[in-house]
Amino acid sequence: MAKSLAVAATHHAALLELLDQFGAFGASGAGINRLAASHADQQARDHLCNWFERHGFVTLIDAVGNVFGVLKLGRGDEGRSFFCGSHLDSQPNGGRFDGTLGVVCACIAGLVIRDHVLQGRVEPEFGTFVVANWTGEEGARFQPSLLGSRVFAGSMPVEDALNIKDGQSESLCAALTEIGYHGSATPPDPDHYLELHIEQGAKLEEAGVPIGIVSSCWGARKLRVIIAGQPDHTGPTPMPERRDALLAAAELIVRTHEISKLSASTLHSSVARIEVSPNSPNTVADNVELWIEFRSADTQALDEAVSQIQQCLDETAVATKCGISIRERETRDVVIFDEAASFVVAEALDRSGIPHLGLETIAGHDAVQLQSICPSTLLFVPSHEGVSHSPDEYTSEADIRAGFDAMMQSVGALISRPVAKVQPGATHV
Amino acid sequence: MAKSLAVAATHHAALLELLDQFGAFGASGAGINRLAASHADQQARDHLCNWFERHGFVTLIDAVGNVFGVLKLGRGDEGRSFFCGSHLDSQPNGGRFDGTLGVVCACIAGLVIRDHVLQGRVEPEFGTFVVANWTGEEGARFQPSLLGSRVFAGSMPVEDALNIKDGQSESLCAALTEIGYHGSATPPDPDHYLELHIEQGAKLEEAGVPIGIVSSCWGARKLRVIIAGQPDHTGPTPMPERRDALLAAAELIVRTHEISKLSASTLHSSVARIEVSPNSPNTVADNVELWIEFRSADTQALDEAVSQIQQCLDETAVATKCGISIRERETRDVVIFDEAASFVVAEALDRSGIPHLGLETIAGHDAVQLQSICPSTLLFVPSHEGVSHSPDEYTSEADIRAGFDAMMQSVGALISRPVAKVQPGATHV
Repeated sequence: MAKSLAVAATHHAALLELLDQFGAFGASGAGINRLAASHADQQARDHLCNWFERHGFVTLIDAVGNVFGVLKLGRGDEGRSFFCGSHLDSQPNGGRFDGTLGVVCACIAGLVIRDHVLQGRVEPEFGTFVVANWTGEEGARFQPSLLGSRVFAGSMPVEDALNIKDGQSESLCAALTEIGYHGSATPPDPDHYLELHIEQGAKLEEAGVPIGIVSSCWGARKLRVIIAGQPDHTGPTPMPERRDALLAAAELIVRTHEISKLSASTLHSSVARIEVSPNSPNTVADNVELWIEFRSADTQALDEAVSQIQQCLDETAVATKCGISIRERETRDVVIFDEAASFVVAEALDRSGIPHLGLETIAGHDAVQLQSICPSTLLFVPSHEGVSHSPDEYTSEADIRAGFDAMMQSVGALISRPVAKVQPGATHV
Repeated sequence: MAKSLAVAATHHAALLELLDQFGAFGASGAGINRLAASHADQQARDHLCNWFERHGFVTLIDAVGNVFGVLKLGRGDEGRSFFCGSHLDSQPNGGRFDGTLGVVCACIAGLVIRDHVLQGRVEPEFGTFVVANWTGEEGARFQPSLLGSRVFAGSMPVEDALNIKDGQSESLCAALTEIGYHGSATPPDPDHYLELHIEQGAKLEEAGVPIGIVSSCWGARKLRVIIAGQPDHTGPTPMPERRDALLAAAELIVRTHEISKLSASTLHSSVARIEVSPNSPNTVADNVELWIEFRSADTQALDEAVSQIQQCLDETAVATKCGISIRERETRDVVIFDEAASFVVAEALDRSGIPHLGLETIAGHDAVQLQSICPSTLLFVPSHEGVSHSPDEYTSEADIRAGFDAMMQSVGALISRPVAKVQPGATHV
C-alpha cells in the first residue's frame, strides 16, 4: 500500500507554469484555437517534446501522431507501463484547460512519482511511466473524435484514420506529415491508464468537492447525413419544383431537437456542424452534410432516438424531394471504468482526507477508448459553471492544485498495486 | 426607322466562338466557377479587354471594376451612348450562359452595328456604342447582387461597395486590386441600355418562341439575420441551458418556407446561404448568419412576408434564448422596364417576322439597376427546362443565333430613334 504522497510547492509551480506556456499556442483572445495537426498544435507538440527531453523522458511518435514520453522509474517491472495523459488539441474557439490540463498534470505526475521512487517513498509495481498526448481528441477538425486513442486502442485501423479529411479536404496523414508528427514508433502497451480532465459540468463546483471519480461514460449515436438537392436559381424557379437541401437540413435539425425534448435530462442531442454547397444566397442548396448526435446512459433510449430520426429522414426526403442518406454511423456504447481501480482510488483519497464524488461523464474522453484495452481511471476537477468548449472555460489555480494532489494519491496507490500483465495484442481487437 | 438588319454567318460564328472561349475560364466539370473578382474572373476580364483592343474598342475600368468597351460609330451624336452588356461572374457552380451570353452578344452587336453604319444601312442617333461587363452581378461572393451596376446607377456609394467583405473577410477593394481591376475611369453616361440574358425559366421553350421582351421585374426583400447563441459542449451541457444558434437558424429556415408556402405562385422565398461558427460537431453553435429572401410582383405580399418573418425572429429568439437581429435589409421595388422602348422593339420584331413573348423576370438583372438612370430593355432567350445557376444550364446554338438576330433588330431600331439626352447626374440619386 502506498503512503500518502506530498506534492512539493515547486511541483505545483511547475505545473501552473507549464499550463500557462501551453496557453500561448493558438491563443485567440481569452480562448484557444488549436485544431488537431494545425500549426498551433505543432507548436504545442514541439513544446511537449522539448519538455520530455529536458526531463529525461524518451519521446516516441506513432503513425497517427500520438506523442508519448516514456520514463523509466528505476524500480518495479519495466515491462509494466502506467500511462497518464490527455490531449493538446482544442475546439476552434475552445478553452485553455480541456485536455491540456491532463497532459500537463501527467508530465508533472511523472516527475513527482520519479522523485518519490528515488527517495524510497513509493515502491512501484509498474517500472515504466508514460505520458500520452492523443491526436485529435476533439473531433473538431477530423471526425470522429477520440481519433488517436481510438487507433491506439485498436478500434480503428490506422490507415482509415490517416485517410480522414478535414473540411478543406486535407487528410490527417498530410496534416501530420506537414507538422512533422506522422511517426513510426511503437509505444509500450499500457497496463493502466489514468486521465485527469476538467468536469465540463458543474457538479463538483456545486458540491465544493475537489475531485470526481468517473464511474461511466454515456453512450452515443453519431450520424453524418448527406442531403442531395438540386441547384437552381432562388428567384424564378417555381417553389414546387425546388429540391432544397438546406430546407431539408433545417427540418432535420428541428426534428432532432424535438426527439430529445421530451426526455432532455436523460437524452441529449445536437447538430453543431453543417456544410452547405454552393452556399450562395442565390442558388438553391444542392448538397448539405449534417452531423447529428444523441447521447444517453440508456442504450434503449439511444436506439429509439436513431429509429425516430431515421423515420424523419425518410419523411423529409419525401416532403422536400431530396435524397437523404446516412453516410457514417458511429455507435458508442456505454463504458464502465475499471471498478477495482475506482475502489483503490477512493480508498487512497479517503486515507488522505480528500473529499471525492462519484460522477458519470456525458462527454467522451480518451480514457473511454483506453478502457477497452486496459483498466482505466478518469478523474475530474471542477469547471467553473460547467462551461467548456468556450473561451470562458475556467478552473481556478486552487482547484488545479487540489485536483493534482488528489491525482497523485491516486497514481501512487494504483502504481504500487500488483496487476496482471495484459498480453500485448490480446485485447487489441 | 431602321431597316431589317441581317446578321452575317461570320458574326454568328464569332459569337459562338467567343462564348466558347469564355467557357474555359473557371471551367469546373460541365459548369463554371467564376466568382466575382476571382482569378477566373480576372482571366475572363483580361480576355474581354484583349478582345476590345483587337476590335477597336477603348477599354475603361471604373472604381468598382466595371469594364467598358467604348466604340465610336462614326455617325450619330457621340454624346449619346447606347449601352449593351451583362456580367461575366458566375455562381460557385453555375452555368456557361448566365451573364456571359449577354456580354458576348453585346460585343458582337457592336461589330455588327459598326458594319451596318459603315455600309450606310443604319443611320444611328447614338454615336457611341458601349459594351459593359458589370462587376459582381451574381451576389455569390459579395452581397448584395447587381453590385457593379448598382454603384454605376448611383444606388450605392462606391466606397460602401468596395468595403463589402466576402466569406473569407476579403474586401471587394482588395480583391479587385489583386486582379488589377480597381480602376479610376469615368465611362460615358448611358442614354439607353439593352441586355440579352437567358430566361432562367421555361416559358419561351414551352411556347417555342425565340425571344422574350421583359416588361417588369419582381420586387424583393432580402434580410441578413444574425443569431447569437452560446458556445458549449454538445455533450454534457444540460439541454435547457443551451443557446443553440444553429437550432434557431433551422427554425427560421423552416418558417421562411412556410410563409411562402400558401402563395407559392406569387411569393417565392429562399434561404440559400448560412455561415455557422464554430461549426464543430462538438460545440454548440454560438454564431450563425442567414440570408433570407422573399420575391413577389406584389409589394403588399412582400411587406406582409417581412412582417411575418420579423415575428418569427422574435418568437424564435424567446424559444431558443438566442439574440436574433437583422443586420442588413435590402428592399428591391418592382421595376417596370421602359415601355416606349419595349414598343419599339416589339414593332421591329414584328416587321422582321420574329415571334416574341412578353415576360416578367423574377430574377434580378443589371438592367433593373440601369432602368433607374436610363430607358432600359431586357430581352430573354430560352433556357432549356428553365434550369440555371447550375452546370445543367443550357441554351442551344440555334436559340442563341435566333436570339441574337432578334437582339440586332432591337438594337437597330432603338439606336436609330431620336431620344432625349439624359442630363449627367440628373437621375443619379
